[in-house]
Amino acid sequence: MTGSPSQGVHAEPGYIHQKDNQLKRLRRIEGQVRGLHRMVESDTYCIDILTQVSAATKALEAVALGLLQDHLKHCLVQAASDPRADFNEKLDEASTAIARLVRS
Amino acid sequence: MTGSPSQGVHAEPGYIHQKDNQLKRLRRIEGQVRGLHRMVESDTYCIDILTQVSAATKALEAVALGLLQDHLKHCLVQAASDPRADFNEKLDEASTAIARLVRS
Amino acid sequence: MTGSPSQGVHAEPGYIHQKDNQLKRLRRIEGQVRGLHRMVESDTYCIDILTQVSAATKALEAVALGLLQDHLKHCLVQAASDPRADFNEKLDEASTAIARLVRS
Amino acid sequence: MTGSPSQGVHAEPGYIHQKDNQLKRLRRIEGQVRGLHRMVESDTYCIDILTQVSAATKALEAVALGLLQDHLKHCLVQAASDPRADFNEKLDEASTAIARLVRS
Repeated sequence: MTGSPSQGVHAEPGYIHQKDNQLKRLRRIEGQVRGLHRMVESDTYCIDILTQVSAATKALEAVALGLLQDHLKHCLVQAASDPRADFNEKLDEASTAIARLVRS
Repeated sequence: MTGSPSQGVHAEPGYIHQKDNQLKRLRRIEGQVRGLHRMVESDTYCIDILTQVSAATKALEAVALGLLQDHLKHCLVQAASDPRADFNEKLDEASTAIARLVRS
Repeated sequence: MTGSPSQGVHAEPGYIHQKDNQLKRLRRIEGQVRGLHRMVESDTYCIDILTQVSAATKALEAVALGLLQDHLKHCLVQAASDPRADFNEKLDEASTAIARLVRS
Repeated sequence: MTGSPSQGVHAEPGYIHQKDNQLKRLRRIEGQVRGLHRMVESDTYCIDILTQVSAATKALEAVALGLLQDHLKHCLVQAASDPRADFNEKLDEASTAIARLVRS
């Protein structure tokens, strides 16, 4: 509960300049998911719910693509000036995240 | 040819027997999105947020696939006994929903 | 080469009326993949290859969505008039195929 | 600010060390697509074709993810030492490619 000390290393994440923008998007997505709950609760027609699920999924994707772009721009490039092994680790980490996005 | 007056009502959507299950899933997803908001707010490392975005996206996909299966099972098959034109319309509607899911 | 006897049951697959259309699409995709091979062979710039990979992936998706729509229209609905257990099996089969598409 | 005259040449693409590997993968995918053509030609059951389409799609995705990883590792990081504007352009280019992959 005291937090992990290494966490503090990332005091300035790559998305720092998009933080307000991303927080707004996530608040909106939370509302979309709450809306989905209401739709199911009130027996809305299946296809109409599916349309809204796709909209929420696309909105989450936009958050992810924004985070990823900021990560490449700031974190990955910064890591490129660190010792070789560390950069490769960062690169694998980013590639894994991209692969997970592509497959989800 | 007599038309389906119940079309506008949808008193019993295809997912009726999965309703509680779907509502629980959506509540959990709402919590996941709220968690994402907290992560961005507290400057969590980009890649850790991306992992959670993928988890939320997969959970939304599971809701969609469940809705779709129930829709095919109940609504589409029921429509197959309606006049031809109506069934084709339902089929196009389902195909469009599937295409949107595949592309999102 | 003797084939599986049950295979012959599907003498008329759901896509029978789209067969020529689907064959043309697949021939075109084969050409796209051969083009990708040439691009890699001649050291084309990574991003330009990625653009063509996305085009080929989308073309394969269009084939899949076409097959799926024809399958729902013909095979699944036909199965709905068969004994219950059989229809549920067909439905699970279709749902699995859709889930695989959504996740790939 | 002197610009990068080598931009148009790309004599050594990012995937140079994975070239043989990628060429083998693409040859295999070409065979998979030809196999799909044969399946449709011989009226194979819809669902069995769909399974193979998903396999080919996944194989194309693996090619794309490999190209992308090599691109980030070599091209993008190299661009980071170029004048600012140029790097941002490269970054946008990579982000667009990733977004296209995620959405296809």
